[in-house]
Amino acid sequence: MSAPIDIFVHSHALCESEQVGPGTRIWAFAHVMNGAVVGRDCNIGDHAFLEGGARLGDRVTIKNQVMVWDGVEIGDDVFVGPGACFTNDLFPRSQRMPLPAVADRYRQRQGWMALTRVENGASLGARCVILAGATIGAYAIVAAGAVVTDDVPPHALFAGVPAKRLGWVCRCGLRLTRVQTAVWRCPQCGETFHEGPAGLVIADT
Amino acid sequence: MSAPIDIFVHSHALCESEQVGPGTRIWAFAHVMNGAVVGRDCNIGDHAFLEGGARLGDRVTIKNQVMVWDGVEIGDDVFVGPGACFTNDLFPRSQRMPLPAVADRYRQRQGWMALTRVENGASLGARCVILAGATIGAYAIVAAGAVVTDDVPPHALFAGVPAKRLGWVCRCGLRLTRVQTAVWRCPQCGETFHEGPAGLVIADT
Amino acid sequence: MSAPIDIFVHSHALCESEQVGPGTRIWAFAHVMNGAVVGRDCNIGDHAFLEGGARLGDRVTIKNQVMVWDGVEIGDDVFVGPGACFTNDLFPRSQRMPLPAVADRYRQRQGWMALTRVENGASLGARCVILAGATIGAYAIVAAGAVVTDDVPPHALFAGVPAKRLGWVCRCGLRLTRVQTAVWRCPQCGETFHEGPAGLVIADT
Repeated sequence: MSAPIDIFVHSHALCESEQVGPGTRIWAFAHVMNGAVVGRDCNIGDHAFLEGGARLGDRVTIKNQVMVWDGVEIGDDVFVGPGACFTNDLFPRSQRMPLPAVADRYRQRQGWMALTRVENGASLGARCVILAGATIGAYAIVAAGAVVTDDVPPHALFAGVPAKRLGWVCRCGLRLTRVQTAVWRCPQCGETFHEGPAGLVIADT
Repeated sequence: MSAPIDIFVHSHALCESEQVGPGTRIWAFAHVMNGAVVGRDCNIGDHAFLEGGARLGDRVTIKNQVMVWDGVEIGDDVFVGPGACFTNDLFPRSQRMPLPAVADRYRQRQGWMALTRVENGASLGARCVILAGATIGAYAIVAAGAVVTDDVPPHALFAGVPAKRLGWVCRCGLRLTRVQTAVWRCPQCGETFHEGPAGLVIADT
Repeated sequence: MSAPIDIFVHSHALCESEQVGPGTRIWAFAHVMNGAVVGRDCNIGDHAFLEGGARLGDRVTIKNQVMVWDGVEIGDDVFVGPGACFTNDLFPRSQRMPLPAVADRYRQRQGWMALTRVENGASLGARCVILAGATIGAYAIVAAGAVVTDDVPPHALFAGVPAKRLGWVCRCGLRLTRVQTAVWRCPQCGETFHEGPAGLVIADT
């Protein structure tokens, strides 16, 4: 097997993974651990951290200071804004705690590490936090500073602490306007969506 | 032209800008990119990041992990608390997304990158987020953890998600108390302000 | 005096403190300043920052990007989640500000730097912010993204901006359920607590 080609690792970065796709760039003071899987043509910003077990698709933008842990899977074309943070345990305790009963019970729970998934094309805003176990739907947008405690449907715009739905967004990023009952349209690109029980679906036009 | 003098760059920092004023100190694991403009006597904390196009005045305190992007302009004597984060796009998408229509529309919008300005003497609290396009007025204080979605008037104290005005603050940092209709005073230093339609103005005393 | 033994400092970390206990590990791009006191068997994650004057007990987990300042004291067995941030000044101003009156008044106040304490066994969630002067009680849990503006009683679960009490938690990390007036029990480990005026106390069983 030949050496990985076409991967840029900044002289001040640390990349220990051998599963990074071609065209991906890793910037200063970022750390990609052994066992992290990164697709092709991704961009990993300064001071970002990808733990072993983290999985990224293709063409993902990871802005500065993002932290992605074991148990987090990110699809293709996702934008993860600066300082966005995932989690993988809802009730963490210091694993070094000596009380035998407490530590044992805690480690028992560890077997149920909650998995988090971000679907294709979604965007996560600056310094948002995603609680373990949530799924962020395709092309959804999580606003800056939001704390996501539950699933976010495709094309939804979520904001606040805890995050609630403020509206719907287009693939191009802009908010949709309702043009009639259960029909939404993008004011910029004209893409049209039907609203069903599972959220928005692009209309055949 | 002589080499820059009186600039301290920590051995573990990375400074690529040639537009850093004398007396400024840049600490460990911080990254000042080429094209960032930094005034004199600033302090840039550990793990901070200044992108090309970011502009800082004189005597600015940038605490650890602050991120300042292209399109952000910071005045003189500003305090930017630890982990405070700016943004420069309200509806971001991964620029690597291949769908031609989506990518084209997104790049069209990029021409409207929203500019952010922090006026002289303002303070931004720990881990606050400033949404693109906001102006933070002189001597205003943004509380820790706040998400600023709109302009903040001079001397205002803003807090919460989204941030709202909680009161007014003095140049010295303390909250003002109302002494009569439209007149506010600092309980520590006695500075007096008149409240007008554009916010507070220091009274001639 | 012999060299410190059994301390692991990653080749990309920076440890300037000579007061780090045996068994402690310090990971990539973390910075432990001279004068920081760290107990034994701690784990200091990537990009974390411990300022001179910060004090940590034994078996503390400091996840990535945590910032601990002078004036913050952390007990034993504490979990500090990724990106959690302390503060030590409630109304900060840039210390470089030249206005003599303002700077003088500000520095006067500096003598009243507010101290923060985290008691044994507590957990702080991802990207939470602890305002200066707060005490976090033993085994309390602060939720991800919370902004703590006041004291948190032992075993309390606090969440939101500003943080409020949502319930009570066991030493093992799970939420307690009320089994009768002023009596709470853990559904996982059965530990029982009495609720008194100062919060929860473990029952003798």
